[in-house]
Amino acid sequence: MVISMKRHATRQEIDEVTDQVKRFGYKVHSIEGEERVVIGVVGVGDVTACLESVEAMPQVEAVTRITAPYKFVSKEFRKEKTRIRVNGTEIGGNEFVVMAGPCSVESEEQILRAAEGVAKAGAKLLRGGAFKPRTSPYDFQGMEEEGLKLLQKAKKQTGLAIVTEVMSDRDVDLVAHYADVLQIGARNMQNFVLLKALGKCGRPILLKRGLSSTVKELLMSAEYIVAHGNPEVMLCERGIRTFETITRNTCDIAAIPALNELTHLPVILDPSHATGKRSLVPALARAGVAIGADGLIVEVHPAPEKAISDGAQSLDLGQFEKMMNELKPYVELWKDTRPQAVAAAN
Amino acid sequence: MVISMKRHATRQEIDEVTDQVKRFGYKVHSIEGEERVVIGVVGVGDVTACLESVEAMPQVEAVTRITAPYKFVSKEFRKEKTRIRVNGTEIGGNEFVVMAGPCSVESEEQILRAAEGVAKAGAKLLRGGAFKPRTSPYDFQGMEEEGLKLLQKAKKQTGLAIVTEVMSDRDVDLVAHYADVLQIGARNMQNFVLLKALGKCGRPILLKRGLSSTVKELLMSAEYIVAHGNPEVMLCERGIRTFETITRNTCDIAAIPALNELTHLPVILDPSHATGKRSLVPALARAGVAIGADGLIVEVHPAPEKAISDGAQSLDLGQFEKMMNELKPYVELWKDTRPQAVAAAN
Amino acid sequence: MVISMKRHATRQEIDEVTDQVKRFGYKVHSIEGEERVVIGVVGVGDVTACLESVEAMPQVEAVTRITAPYKFVSKEFRKEKTRIRVNGTEIGGNEFVVMAGPCSVESEEQILRAAEGVAKAGAKLLRGGAFKPRTSPYDFQGMEEEGLKLLQKAKKQTGLAIVTEVMSDRDVDLVAHYADVLQIGARNMQNFVLLKALGKCGRPILLKRGLSSTVKELLMSAEYIVAHGNPEVMLCERGIRTFETITRNTCDIAAIPALNELTHLPVILDPSHATGKRSLVPALARAGVAIGADGLIVEVHPAPEKAISDGAQSLDLGQFEKMMNELKPYVELWKDTRPQAVAAAN
Amino acid sequence: MVISMKRHATRQEIDEVTDQVKRFGYKVHSIEGEERVVIGVVGVGDVTACLESVEAMPQVEAVTRITAPYKFVSKEFRKEKTRIRVNGTEIGGNEFVVMAGPCSVESEEQILRAAEGVAKAGAKLLRGGAFKPRTSPYDFQGMEEEGLKLLQKAKKQTGLAIVTEVMSDRDVDLVAHYADVLQIGARNMQNFVLLKALGKCGRPILLKRGLSSTVKELLMSAEYIVAHGNPEVMLCERGIRTFETITRNTCDIAAIPALNELTHLPVILDPSHATGKRSLVPALARAGVAIGADGLIVEVHPAPEKAISDGAQSLDLGQFEKMMNELKPYVELWKDTRPQAVAAAN
Repeated sequence: MVISMKRHATRQEIDEVTDQVKRFGYKVHSIEGEERVVIGVVGVGDVTACLESVEAMPQVEAVTRITAPYKFVSKEFRKEKTRIRVNGTEIGGNEFVVMAGPCSVESEEQILRAAEGVAKAGAKLLRGGAFKPRTSPYDFQGMEEEGLKLLQKAKKQTGLAIVTEVMSDRDVDLVAHYADVLQIGARNMQNFVLLKALGKCGRPILLKRGLSSTVKELLMSAEYIVAHGNPEVMLCERGIRTFETITRNTCDIAAIPALNELTHLPVILDPSHATGKRSLVPALARAGVAIGADGLIVEVHPAPEKAISDGAQSLDLGQFEKMMNELKPYVELWKDTRPQAVAAAN
Repeated sequence: MVISMKRHATRQEIDEVTDQVKRFGYKVHSIEGEERVVIGVVGVGDVTACLESVEAMPQVEAVTRITAPYKFVSKEFRKEKTRIRVNGTEIGGNEFVVMAGPCSVESEEQILRAAEGVAKAGAKLLRGGAFKPRTSPYDFQGMEEEGLKLLQKAKKQTGLAIVTEVMSDRDVDLVAHYADVLQIGARNMQNFVLLKALGKCGRPILLKRGLSSTVKELLMSAEYIVAHGNPEVMLCERGIRTFETITRNTCDIAAIPALNELTHLPVILDPSHATGKRSLVPALARAGVAIGADGLIVEVHPAPEKAISDGAQSLDLGQFEKMMNELKPYVELWKDTRPQAVAAAN
Repeated sequence: MVISMKRHATRQEIDEVTDQVKRFGYKVHSIEGEERVVIGVVGVGDVTACLESVEAMPQVEAVTRITAPYKFVSKEFRKEKTRIRVNGTEIGGNEFVVMAGPCSVESEEQILRAAEGVAKAGAKLLRGGAFKPRTSPYDFQGMEEEGLKLLQKAKKQTGLAIVTEVMSDRDVDLVAHYADVLQIGARNMQNFVLLKALGKCGRPILLKRGLSSTVKELLMSAEYIVAHGNPEVMLCERGIRTFETITRNTCDIAAIPALNELTHLPVILDPSHATGKRSLVPALARAGVAIGADGLIVEVHPAPEKAISDGAQSLDLGQFEKMMNELKPYVELWKDTRPQAVAAAN
Repeated sequence: MVISMKRHATRQEIDEVTDQVKRFGYKVHSIEGEERVVIGVVGVGDVTACLESVEAMPQVEAVTRITAPYKFVSKEFRKEKTRIRVNGTEIGGNEFVVMAGPCSVESEEQILRAAEGVAKAGAKLLRGGAFKPRTSPYDFQGMEEEGLKLLQKAKKQTGLAIVTEVMSDRDVDLVAHYADVLQIGARNMQNFVLLKALGKCGRPILLKRGLSSTVKELLMSAEYIVAHGNPEVMLCERGIRTFETITRNTCDIAAIPALNELTHLPVILDPSHATGKRSLVPALARAGVAIGADGLIVEVHPAPEKAISDGAQSLDLGQFEKMMNELKPYVELWKDTRPQAVAAAN
């Protein structure tokens, strides 16, 4: 159950509602928005009685019964897709948004060339890691704050928004200072301390699915972020780990329409990590558009053969531009399927 | 190494070549086509010396070195996609071919209604199981020959070609008598006795990927069929088994472009078994077109709620027609990417 | 529900019972043993009414309600472990039975040396493949009937019983002629035509778990064999396919006690395929004894470095003997946990 | 390559060696022990030349060439098992060490009863979570510092050492203040920021394998901790995620002997998470002893039916005591296989 309070409800009115809910055995989890407080009701209690009682309270706008274990991120809570504005672009709306750039920020020249190239080809966000989660302690761990500064420089030069990874709750404020979108890597999808810290960071989140995480666990991790105060979460399918080794991971593409049935959060496809193989990226990107993702995040490097990490799955600038051109007619078809387009046509 | 003999080479000429190859330590595996014999050379030996020696023989047309463990099905052996003609339709060519119909043949009325519906919506082959591989010995095992006869009746009435499963080498001739395409189910992908028996059946094969089979194993199983004399094999991605349970299987969609890089055999997507969920089928079908599959096989039932098996993943006739209409613009884009179209444009 | 008829019930008495059961909407699946007919009742109907009605019939000995989808193999149907006598040895009883031998029968010398070695070290059955399921059509496919004859020769010389694989329903009679136990390989676990053919073969079956088969599917496949008339089935855990590649498969060892809770059939562990690595076999064998398997099947080759198949996971004769000696104290502890031992102690 | 400096080498001597190594193109990673500095050499360079040059330096005790990507944790670096002393108990030596206790610390009464019970039955460490990683933000998140204080109280009362989870680098000092061993949960196995923070915490680490992590990735994560200064790491197999759902996870028991071949770090088995099912725990625990684990970590709760988390997999105190008694003869056999025992016998 989720209770939406009337706008500008007072503290006392809110407390009355939460006290009432607790009488039925429940716990509450409130999110205080600018205009409205929303109260998540969780736990075990007498649903029907509680619902009837709360609905009758004058300060309550609406009560929504939610059967899924995730509340705020469920389609039951909100039918229309969440739209997230980033630097003039809207994710989850009528625009198919492409994020692109190198795995790691390696140097000023590299990131600026990458940024210019992907901007020219039509990307709206620049990706690039400054903090890198690497399997080996001996591998390049990222340029850290210096890398963030280079991303900011690239933003100034190209107008691209920045999406970059944060690996620790300690670094959330630092990364949020430089980035437009904070990315949570697959290996941190269930780093719950980090997820909680994102609740107050003031930036949209790109939450990547864990290597062996189910769709439901992905939604529960998103719920952590939203329940701690940040409703702007994008989910990212980036391949899961299976027995098949011909690709780096196995792209669970059907998870995209499955998520679209379960949640209102935008869903982004990462065809680069999903395949690990440059030559497969454009075909998978087309499939991502066709199946109804809200956008892509693609690894692009000005010189993939020299990349410190993930060179094999990075497109060069020419390949990326070619892919973006090939995607155009698919994006046109995609637009026709958006609820907004459908609404306008009726 | 694969040796293509000149057309109409004599038995003696062929024997001379195979004898020569064996001198270098190899074994041979010949396929006798109508016009030409092709000799697969397998095993361990002195590649360079053998190749040079055989190339110089007058009765030899061409020698192709093949590094993959699968020979006849590899892209190294043949660059252009294999085109398979079935009842006036060509799979692997310029047509995106849809096969549709119920999981099982259940009754005359059911299969005829299904056939008419899917034909009207644009399918070219009718699917329907007469021999059913069921996890439980107590579940419906199929109508067997009676079901095959009903399929034949449906073919007469609608002009659709028939694709249906064969589960045992004993039944290959029987099923080949009634069907245009023989389907090998996922659980039989490594039933090697059955695969060998398909070599001489005179029908194209639809080979489904095993639940936990790799792309390479799928190709090796196809190689069994081709090496035993039947070059007309279509591969089918139908989802693999992973930890994720929100869908019945996990569609390894990136396997389709990966296969297109490795083999010349056509690749079909089965969005029904891949998801197990009716509502996800149309979106996955779109992705299949966009990613470059050669066709689809889709479960359609006139009354899915009454289906004996796989009702949850079957479209009804109206849903199938709607899906086929939605696919049309994607199929138009698909045609532009076919080598034939590209060739014509140059 | 499973109905045990009284001993020597007449055909008419049996028919009266099955007719009565069908009146309640059920289907029946009868197994005719030498002394007694057992009737499996499957499908959907009015359980309570049917049970009461049948229990009252004079020719009925007992009725057991079974909730699992597998009936005859379930612990609900029979509490005590099924004991299978093979050539003087009893599997499922108070003896921990080891089967050992090479992957493939390669030559008379090889199989005789292997047989003598494993017999001396304490094995009771000789394994060795004459029909080999190989991923590649170009790999050694087995010596077929010639191999079976060599196995028979080895049996005469050593007294070992023979367990060997059958790959097709066509070969069941042939293999049953030579072998004491018929092995169904992992890739054929859901070859339902083959499973049905085993029902009348007159030999115990060793049914290996499929690479991606669940414990429940393994039990359903065993149910196929039993429901078609053959109650002597042993199950074999041989590793499943996962993302981990450091071992050839992942041994799901906890499936052994899980099976012991669900079924009365004996459970055998194959530590060779489960690991694919010789050095890990003895440790895993110890674990198999400790966890309560009923026996082991182990790959042993007189000269593993020369083996045509599976050399890397085969022990040589010395290593096998050493392992058997190390297992002895574990087998002593194992005996103390057998219900028979426990019963004797009380 | 790993360079062991002579005891009490001076800063200048160490610098001379690292400078020399860097001349060959390598990077260094030093660990400063109390008596001796050990220098890990990583990266790409001229191995042979570097090795010869460094071996000749007088301040160098020994140089070990290591081909594995993990250096300090590899068996190539150290042959004998690392022994870790905790509160008078030695893990990795001649004692089979059992850690036991509830999933979460829930109350003073609960943890004290658990501690007394497991101590009495022979456990040497008490487990119990104060910081809990939970899939849902609405589930109990642990008692945090209050829980740590209760663990300390239990330690005082029973003499048991404490092992408890730390979820964030922020909390390492806090948890290290109360605990004897810091546990890293499966979901944090690749939380690299946390792993680095453990390097200086002054406590042994129990590192659990991630749900979809390979054995090699587990070793690389251990290498993070050791390379950052903490050589006292225990590895824990707790089941991996596969398609099988009859158990909560799939115990990859063969990973234990595989790890014993690759690393000198002690390996602990968690039969509770590996199965998720109380009734399977004792059998799997026996297998763990037999296969050569160095210890167990087992969930035990005084009243499992009332447990806030993981009740289904928790033994009650009587069951735990029974299991410990049953393990005794297996532990006796285990002792005979320890290198120390073997050495003493020679």
